[in-house]
Amino acid sequence: MSFSSDDHRYMARALQLAERGRYITSPNPRVGCVIVRDGRIVGEGWTQPAGQNHAEIQALNDAAARGEDVRGATAYVTLEPCSHFGRTPPCADALVRAGLGRVVSAMEDPNPLVSGNGLRRLNEAGIATASGLLAGDARELNAGFVSRMTRGRPWVRVKIAASADGRTALANGQSQWITGEAARRDVHHWRASACAVLTGIGTVLADNPQLNVRHVATTRQPKRVVVDARLDTPPTAALFNGSDVWVATANPQGPKADALRAAGATLLTCPIDAAGRVDLPALFAELAQRGVNELMVEAGARLSGAVIAAGLADEILLYLAPCLMGHDARALADLPSISAMGDVARMRWADARKLGDDLRLTLRP
Amino acid sequence: MSFSSDDHRYMARALQLAERGRYITSPNPRVGCVIVRDGRIVGEGWTQPAGQNHAEIQALNDAAARGEDVRGATAYVTLEPCSHFGRTPPCADALVRAGLGRVVSAMEDPNPLVSGNGLRRLNEAGIATASGLLAGDARELNAGFVSRMTRGRPWVRVKIAASADGRTALANGQSQWITGEAARRDVHHWRASACAVLTGIGTVLADNPQLNVRHVATTRQPKRVVVDARLDTPPTAALFNGSDVWVATANPQGPKADALRAAGATLLTCPIDAAGRVDLPALFAELAQRGVNELMVEAGARLSGAVIAAGLADEILLYLAPCLMGHDARALADLPSISAMGDVARMRWADARKLGDDLRLTLRP
Repeated sequence: MSFSSDDHRYMARALQLAERGRYITSPNPRVGCVIVRDGRIVGEGWTQPAGQNHAEIQALNDAAARGEDVRGATAYVTLEPCSHFGRTPPCADALVRAGLGRVVSAMEDPNPLVSGNGLRRLNEAGIATASGLLAGDARELNAGFVSRMTRGRPWVRVKIAASADGRTALANGQSQWITGEAARRDVHHWRASACAVLTGIGTVLADNPQLNVRHVATTRQPKRVVVDARLDTPPTAALFNGSDVWVATANPQGPKADALRAAGATLLTCPIDAAGRVDLPALFAELAQRGVNELMVEAGARLSGAVIAAGLADEILLYLAPCLMGHDARALADLPSISAMGDVARMRWADARKLGDDLRLTLRP
Repeated sequence: MSFSSDDHRYMARALQLAERGRYITSPNPRVGCVIVRDGRIVGEGWTQPAGQNHAEIQALNDAAARGEDVRGATAYVTLEPCSHFGRTPPCADALVRAGLGRVVSAMEDPNPLVSGNGLRRLNEAGIATASGLLAGDARELNAGFVSRMTRGRPWVRVKIAASADGRTALANGQSQWITGEAARRDVHHWRASACAVLTGIGTVLADNPQLNVRHVATTRQPKRVVVDARLDTPPTAALFNGSDVWVATANPQGPKADALRAAGATLLTCPIDAAGRVDLPALFAELAQRGVNELMVEAGARLSGAVIAAGLADEILLYLAPCLMGHDARALADLPSISAMGDVARMRWADARKLGDDLRLTLRP
């Protein structure tokens, strides 16, 4: 399949539009759509919050509002148009009805059960189709949705703010503030992108964080998920600030459970491992079931270390402050002891950038 | 003082030439010189190894070899021409004799005792002078020489190779190799730049390093300095590989001292502090006396930590490998315990770049 430079340009525009849905589409993927006729963009759209219009419908509506004729036009869509009734009718049918001549998608639907169906439906209606244009960017934008569809678990981003010597708190626990304002704003951007933010009961008890989005504008707050096998989360915790709190626990019965439910928490029942800790693969599968595409982990060394050690971290965002906190300060992740350099898991530096006075380094497996 | 764009261009060229002397000029500064007449470069030069020609003489010789007339020409020099007899005669006099019309220097001599004398001598001979063009770059290139002249101590670069969680060795001491080939080659570049490489007796006993330059080409090896209060350095250590080894000790007497001298070591007598450790400020003053401009510290957590804690580190080169070694692995620097975040010394990220699979981050106070 070969694509023209115009094809690339329009798909790049569609990806830009998709990005506008970053904070709002969960649990749906972020999708952008550009409709082009006679070398001119006649309609644009991106996915709206769940239950509202998908990108294709928005672009068709935009063209209609502009009084443009879309018959024979080409639609560039960052994800294969859906062919099934979900919360909204199938977009493939709408494109057929509108008389489009060609549909180019950046990638097929990652759900193996429906992948290719949308394009096939278009083909059967006589519409030319192509797929795979800027697929890498499209997959990156919806890494969470792709992960949920293909692996049955969220795409997991572990955030760690540390000193240059890899410490997240002084020996006495003090940690505010290691990193500066720009790094904190960046963290809120990733929180707003995430479907859910995960933390541990240790962090809830020690820091009583809100873990909601405050420093960037969003109309949707991520769920907050507390790993709390024994239900020690106080019903008065700052987490209970209006948006959803899920508590992952071994036994959702008894007065503590009732008190948490009364405070507004949803209790998720999870198996526990031999050490009495919530089984993370089971919890992550449950989160995927509940529509969590991107999960942001903002936890202490124990839970962050457990996520990493279990091979469940798809990305580590390491915010490094330009300071040294010393060898008695707290480690950034509790990981199993390693006795040979050859056993150290190698990852790769995917990105490095300056944020105010700090650096943000991105590690990926 | 205002400079033309041509002035900037020629001085930038002189700085490029000065850089060619990076590995060889110690203990002299790296200096470059460009002679321009009628809008054309007629001579170029840079400082040769100590005892040989300075940049100005090289440039004059270059012009003569090209058959160029330099009378009335402008010389761009990255450091004020010397006015005193050192190992070589004063360059200012040579410029006067050659009949130059104008001399532009990037910075004045940092030695407060002679600063301005060279330019004054030129002025008195009727040559127009100006100084301060691209001074920041010129100071950076000779940070070591400037430090020795103005502070009486070397400019100190602490090298640390660590995992992303700030660990330099596994709990059992294994550390080869955390970082990859490109990072190691970069370390050798900085070694070649340094007048001396400093390590501790702990590293000598544990790793038996050579600490010489192998992965980049150089005609000069840095001195190697071992901080070794009790003279535990084995006379058979790999350090004794042909180029100078200095051992900083409290008491340079007795059989161990004799054995080290027999192995080729020079013993530096240093005061010790209350804890029985070599007094670092005194050692660094001694190193400056001995002509050490740039000192590279390649040591373990204890000595690196002591240098940093004493406020003697001018730069930390942090090579970060894309891996996590865990909380039981070894800390990158032993630093005094801190009990309040406000007491954590803030530095700044001066640079960040990718070297092969690793990152090199530069911290400065």
